[in-house]
Amino acid sequence: MIDVCLLGTGGMMPLPNRWLTSLMLRYNGKCILLDCGEGTQIAMKKKGLSPNPISTILFTHYHADHISGLPGMLLAMGNAERTEPVLIVGPKGLERVVSSLRVIAPELPFEIRFRELTEGLETFELPGEPAFHITALRANHRVTCYCYSFELERAGRFDAAAAKEKNIPLTYWSRLQKGETIEDPAAPSGVYTPDMVMGPARKGLKIAYATDSRPCDNIVTAARDADLFICEGMYGEEDKLSKAKEKKHMTFGEAARIGAKAQPAAMWLTHFSPSEMHPENYIKAAQKIYPPVVCGKDGKSLTLNFEEDKFGSDADASLPNNPR
Amino acid sequence: MIDVCLLGTGGMMPLPNRWLTSLMLRYNGKCILLDCGEGTQIAMKKKGLSPNPISTILFTHYHADHISGLPGMLLAMGNAERTEPVLIVGPKGLERVVSSLRVIAPELPFEIRFRELTEGLETFELPGEPAFHITALRANHRVTCYCYSFELERAGRFDAAAAKEKNIPLTYWSRLQKGETIEDPAAPSGVYTPDMVMGPARKGLKIAYATDSRPCDNIVTAARDADLFICEGMYGEEDKLSKAKEKKHMTFGEAARIGAKAQPAAMWLTHFSPSEMHPENYIKAAQKIYPPVVCGKDGKSLTLNFEEDKFGSDADASLPNNPR
Repeated sequence: MIDVCLLGTGGMMPLPNRWLTSLMLRYNGKCILLDCGEGTQIAMKKKGLSPNPISTILFTHYHADHISGLPGMLLAMGNAERTEPVLIVGPKGLERVVSSLRVIAPELPFEIRFRELTEGLETFELPGEPAFHITALRANHRVTCYCYSFELERAGRFDAAAAKEKNIPLTYWSRLQKGETIEDPAAPSGVYTPDMVMGPARKGLKIAYATDSRPCDNIVTAARDADLFICEGMYGEEDKLSKAKEKKHMTFGEAARIGAKAQPAAMWLTHFSPSEMHPENYIKAAQKIYPPVVCGKDGKSLTLNFEEDKFGSDADASLPNNPR
Repeated sequence: MIDVCLLGTGGMMPLPNRWLTSLMLRYNGKCILLDCGEGTQIAMKKKGLSPNPISTILFTHYHADHISGLPGMLLAMGNAERTEPVLIVGPKGLERVVSSLRVIAPELPFEIRFRELTEGLETFELPGEPAFHITALRANHRVTCYCYSFELERAGRFDAAAAKEKNIPLTYWSRLQKGETIEDPAAPSGVYTPDMVMGPARKGLKIAYATDSRPCDNIVTAARDADLFICEGMYGEEDKLSKAKEKKHMTFGEAARIGAKAQPAAMWLTHFSPSEMHPENYIKAAQKIYPPVVCGKDGKSLTLNFEEDKFGSDADASLPNNPR
């Protein structure tokens, strides 16, 4: 299960009623924050979320509206008594940019670890079980920018019949189910391994996040068959296409066409231009291209459950506060 | 006349219903911003204020809650098409801190000029008429911190009888009144000077701003006989005195005692600790020490008028929006 909360939906500058685009993912008690513009820590507080459990912060790029809230967020994490290391991920220049911003947050009670992205595509895992894979793919903006996909693995079903047939002692069952290999002289080859009792891996969960980019194949790859795809929609009006091209952003229609190619189950638009006061006015045209696309809104939340349990609708019940 | 708007009243971290402490002064179409924490640009927008007219930004010190909003504010000023230079004033390290933060705001359509404070007391003037004097005095915080006073001069009354008696041509009157010296061979010594027609300077306006400090004589000096004194009140409860001493802040009572010494006409407390959810609960005790003291609140505004016109009460009519 993954809790998703779109903390803000604004692009370029924070507005009194629209925080800057930022996404929070929560699974197994860990939080991952994507982008952190000015005010993101306030948007989190509005949702009743603590900064303490943030273990990883990923940046798409270093335009101010995506990173200006970092010093305050790091200090808030420190004030919330976080002591475990925090991983920060982002394009080339990461350590230089973060160190510069930390001129006003030099002392923190936790270590910062960096993972600088240099390749067109990079995949890495966060520690812990089940495996949580992150894929960063280069997008197409005025500066180096990445989109991300997140995949939470799901192990196969435990096959009790196989375990019985292979005479595996009952006390080992849960350890094998958790992925442990157990040495035991009674085992045929001296060890019991998870694959002896586990069925094939089942469908996990996939989320994709792409903002500040022209449409490109890497975004389609990131969003392919995702359970939820969060994508920028800077401009609602299609006659702003030339502006979108100039500023290296997208119109709603262009975002919807990515959706049509990638076929995510759900799709939310975000990163609205400050000039788009009512983005929902333009969503119908986009839905003609890809029906599942909807406008994100500040605080919009969803709990993604593994297949049997199915989608938890717009399940704000799983997060402490309701969205605005 | 000076418009005053207390944009926020929070200390340490921005909260969903409390912006960080920041003050906006407006006179003669110019704006002066004091401190700029995360979210200050949003607080300004909430009051309907544009970032474009900000000509001067002053910092008390460089703790994040007083400066983290600077990169976003500079970008917002650029987006509002400001092209005139901006003066930034603050303690030692100013250029280094601002340059570091500008890693995410490297390109601006206006020049930044710096005035670094190094002495215990420094006085300077902003360009333009009438003269606007700024005095920076060192306060007493964990890092170097300054408090400020602002004095808008008021010229004397124009003495028409004297002008007539001295046979000064009528066409020169308004120029002399504006402070101009006019060469004319018909004048007794070849020039007409303002002092020939202007009475003695009248009482101007004075505002003082002090935050993040233990009580000290310099704050009393800054606030002496001010029309409005805005002062930190980090803790309402007097039993938090030892905490105030440790963190180098003040209790409401300590702030009120500064008021009693300096005798400002009006006094607002600000920079409330995030733990003080209802600062007004503690104001009565402070008013026993200095009756004019009240709690500031986000967006609290006042127009200070020259003496004849008297105080414009809590004259929010002069600013586009009402306070919250």
